[in-house]
Amino acid sequence: MFTDLNPTPRILLGPGPSDIHPRVLRAMATPLQGHLDPEFLALMDEVQELLRYVFQTRNKLTLALPGTGTAGMEAAFANWVEPGDSVVIAVNGYFGDRMCDMASRYGAEVRRLDIPWGEVYAPAQLEAELRKKPAKLLALVQAETSTGALQPMAGLGELAHRNGALLLMDCVTSLGGAPVEIDAWGVDIAYSGTQKCVGCPPGLSPFTASPRAWEVLGQRKGKVPNWYLDLTLLAKYWGPERVYHHTAPINMVYALREALRMVQEEGLEARFARHRRHAELLWAGLEEMGLSLHVPLERRLPSLTTPRVPQGVDELAVRKRLLADYSIEIAGGLGALKGQVWRIGLMGHSSRRENVALLLAALGEILGR
Amino acid sequence: MFTDLNPTPRILLGPGPSDIHPRVLRAMATPLQGHLDPEFLALMDEVQELLRYVFQTRNKLTLALPGTGTAGMEAAFANWVEPGDSVVIAVNGYFGDRMCDMASRYGAEVRRLDIPWGEVYAPAQLEAELRKKPAKLLALVQAETSTGALQPMAGLGELAHRNGALLLMDCVTSLGGAPVEIDAWGVDIAYSGTQKCVGCPPGLSPFTASPRAWEVLGQRKGKVPNWYLDLTLLAKYWGPERVYHHTAPINMVYALREALRMVQEEGLEARFARHRRHAELLWAGLEEMGLSLHVPLERRLPSLTTPRVPQGVDELAVRKRLLADYSIEIAGGLGALKGQVWRIGLMGHSSRRENVALLLAALGEILGR
Repeated sequence: MFTDLNPTPRILLGPGPSDIHPRVLRAMATPLQGHLDPEFLALMDEVQELLRYVFQTRNKLTLALPGTGTAGMEAAFANWVEPGDSVVIAVNGYFGDRMCDMASRYGAEVRRLDIPWGEVYAPAQLEAELRKKPAKLLALVQAETSTGALQPMAGLGELAHRNGALLLMDCVTSLGGAPVEIDAWGVDIAYSGTQKCVGCPPGLSPFTASPRAWEVLGQRKGKVPNWYLDLTLLAKYWGPERVYHHTAPINMVYALREALRMVQEEGLEARFARHRRHAELLWAGLEEMGLSLHVPLERRLPSLTTPRVPQGVDELAVRKRLLADYSIEIAGGLGALKGQVWRIGLMGHSSRRENVALLLAALGEILGR
Repeated sequence: MFTDLNPTPRILLGPGPSDIHPRVLRAMATPLQGHLDPEFLALMDEVQELLRYVFQTRNKLTLALPGTGTAGMEAAFANWVEPGDSVVIAVNGYFGDRMCDMASRYGAEVRRLDIPWGEVYAPAQLEAELRKKPAKLLALVQAETSTGALQPMAGLGELAHRNGALLLMDCVTSLGGAPVEIDAWGVDIAYSGTQKCVGCPPGLSPFTASPRAWEVLGQRKGKVPNWYLDLTLLAKYWGPERVYHHTAPINMVYALREALRMVQEEGLEARFARHRRHAELLWAGLEEMGLSLHVPLERRLPSLTTPRVPQGVDELAVRKRLLADYSIEIAGGLGALKGQVWRIGLMGHSSRRENVALLLAALGEILGR
């Protein structure tokens, strides 16, 4: 027999999940209705409307996939890649690398554009590659959770379109915490996760696709080689047909609706300003402690900060002490930055002034600075 | 702006989701830890142990996939089918049919064994097909949610193995409500959902695979063509390596652990007896009302009952009145049985004497019997 569930309360200041507001937890615990109940179907429409707001889009195909952010990435490649399709993938961190693996599993001819982790792309770099040879997709990560860099997106949709490609964007670590302008930027396919700046537990993937992307999807020669994430089927459940596809994770949808309602109440502009303000406080404090930040100010993510580990410091030991003595979670580096940086997230409900003050105090004590 | 979340309380007596015990809802609303927190990793081990109990297996590869039951079906075919593999699929309902669609998307040569919906297979029928020509998989649905029939499983593992096939079993509507004996029956690959007899909200898929299946998976020529459900990667997160794969749906895992703890406290035998007892009460009451049951007693599922719609009765109007006047959800027929049967579930926390009495009273009133 196992004991009662009793996890030690944490302060989640890593790359996600972030702390969840009690309102969202309460909504999640609401006794559920069925996945085809007329009231639940109406609630799905509301979630779509709220998602369009946070994505800043009018895309009809806007929904929450029944899986985590990784399922969103998978859905993007499963639906839009056919064997032999040429795909340009910008790799400036761990998640760009993961995109290459996924795209190749669906038979894409993957053209990697590698730059050092933490840097971002100039439009000319991307366009030069598309001009060499046509590509079906140009894929990149707006907010690289492994590095803390923010890719400027303005103009990239037009750039992709004039070269015959669709623009695919990962916004897992930005949605709800930094501007995401699907329509203004001309993004055709985008996905996110719920557990970062959106302020909902992990388990769903907000997803949106443009009419242009939908048209391309309709021209597939074969069926989507992934039944669970087949958007032509999912659209019939989320759309007016209401054709049964899977049993929706209903309580997760309740939680997402409440989290999105809180985004709407705060307002996107105010929410971005809050994320930015607390990030700036954190940056100033870390630099005052003598830590250097891996990403220069002009391309730094507000939701995720990557201080470099000072020479001679055991980065894992620091994280273990933060967890043991302060119950604070931050993360270490991933992939090429393993051992070199810490990853500190201030996302959603975790982005609060008291968390910044506490973390700086705790880090200062542990590092003796 | 949207109103506060306020779904009308329902009594869920359809094919799932079922009603959730308040203990499970409370567990789900627990403030979360990170997906790599040492305490959460230890909790995953507990969930694996509890899943082995409910599956009656010692399989090391036993875990909860980060998607609904449909993701479990997808994982089974994505991992074990390679293009050109021959797969025998028993189709006696909607979900067998879905298996054919999925398997073909992964390039399988699908050999359908169709029998009328509501019937089950004799071992000799299955063996005759395997003897005609070798197959990599023999796939069937133990508890067909679309028909209410229960496939006898004893001996089928040995039958598959002596013909060189792995045995794949869907137990979405039986796990936790009727005997599921993975090891005793020699099942190699099995998946379920959380939202039926297990008594947890929808969103995860309990999954298990035998050492024999694991060995076959290791002999794949190519990578699994589905990154999110690639069991070779998932096993490294659920196993001692703890390699990051996706951000686990942590609160769903909390809910599943609590639901499984309740299964363990009740005991499998007592739980099966409860499901059976309430099903028998329902069957007697429906027959007393003059309704005939689609599936004969000897192969009838205890968790899902399919009374035939009497001639001249508008089945949808009956369901609408049940929902409007009693807030009770039952379902209509699916696929070949659309319009011909209702589907009444007594699963998990919904399998209670008071629900049977209420449903019989409500149906009697509506049907005027």
